[in-house]
Amino acid sequence: MTDPRLRRQLDFIVEVDKLKQVLRRTSIVGEARLENSAEHSWHLGVMAALLAEYAPHGTDLGRTLLMLLIHDVVEIDAGDTFAFDESANADKLVRERKAAERLFGLLPPDQGDRLWSLWEEFEAGRTPEARFANALDRFHAFVQNVSNGGGTWKAHAISKERIMQRMDPIREGAPALWPHVVRTVDEIMGPTPPEEEAGA
Amino acid sequence: MTDPRLRRQLDFIVEVDKLKQVLRRTSIVGEARLENSAEHSWHLGVMAALLAEYAPHGTDLGRTLLMLLIHDVVEIDAGDTFAFDESANADKLVRERKAAERLFGLLPPDQGDRLWSLWEEFEAGRTPEARFANALDRFHAFVQNVSNGGGTWKAHAISKERIMQRMDPIREGAPALWPHVVRTVDEIMGPTPPEEEAGA
Repeated sequence: MTDPRLRRQLDFIVEVDKLKQVLRRTSIVGEARLENSAEHSWHLGVMAALLAEYAPHGTDLGRTLLMLLIHDVVEIDAGDTFAFDESANADKLVRERKAAERLFGLLPPDQGDRLWSLWEEFEAGRTPEARFANALDRFHAFVQNVSNGGGTWKAHAISKERIMQRMDPIREGAPALWPHVVRTVDEIMGPTPPEEEAGA
Repeated sequence: MTDPRLRRQLDFIVEVDKLKQVLRRTSIVGEARLENSAEHSWHLGVMAALLAEYAPHGTDLGRTLLMLLIHDVVEIDAGDTFAFDESANADKLVRERKAAERLFGLLPPDQGDRLWSLWEEFEAGRTPEARFANALDRFHAFVQNVSNGGGTWKAHAISKERIMQRMDPIREGAPALWPHVVRTVDEIMGPTPPEEEAGA
């Protein structure tokens, strides 16, 4: 008989396979197919490793990596909530907490608690690791949108002001990447008129 | 203008998006769709974190994680080589080395060299990290096959002896998982007859 601890670990490992069926709003580069949240999480892990030098000094890369790998598993129950959909965002927290309880509850308690608190840390965005992880999450969407010529932004008619609001965690969590973001959004969406800048 | 170092990092990050288009032979759990190598790499990262306690003492989890995240990127040029296809495996090494040269060559040299040597370490399978990473790579295919009732093995008429050969890196790199593998393959494929066991 399989050891009960390994059994619980395997149950979780099989259950999170479903993240491969959760679709995001962004397409994979150069293709029409939407990206799923498992692929996205992989890409974030690679980005964390390569862009670690833009994280604030003292950020623990190992914790950031693990946080990124599990930051979206709650979507298995709660679904991917489109960033620019205000009504869906209203009950996002409730749906995701319930999902965290069920999913992390599959694991042996020590591991479930650890992953749950890592996920909460990501959501709260107060530690350097959580800020850097959130910055990369936004930066990935940014890189994809830029690769597709601003595809998602244009398709959903998102204003430049809202894009910059959405990207703001990059300014906080990976400030060294911010000038690149500002310049690139200007190139794609046109420069910000002086009056809009003053009123923001 | 974007800093040339960041430009190279971004070029690599965008290029490896193509790993999401490389299909493996295993289906995602409960679905007909084949898994791609980016999703697979994500799943391995999660598994490494959760199954670290089965790695030999002293295995560096951070290095294992990073190794797993990048171990398949060469498939972008070289394709996924089916484990049980002998002719495709003959020139696998040549195709993959050429791919490594091009892909890791996109990065700033310090990072390219680091990832390239991590990939070669994985392929050589001689360090504890590389052994554990290889064990998880096989264990993932194992978990998926078991979830699908032995689907890929049965569809391609793979003998039990060849399955066990293929799974052997688990015995070496994560010996604590081996009894579970032996017992589960017995359950799915039937116990090994005594004469076959003696003749192996």
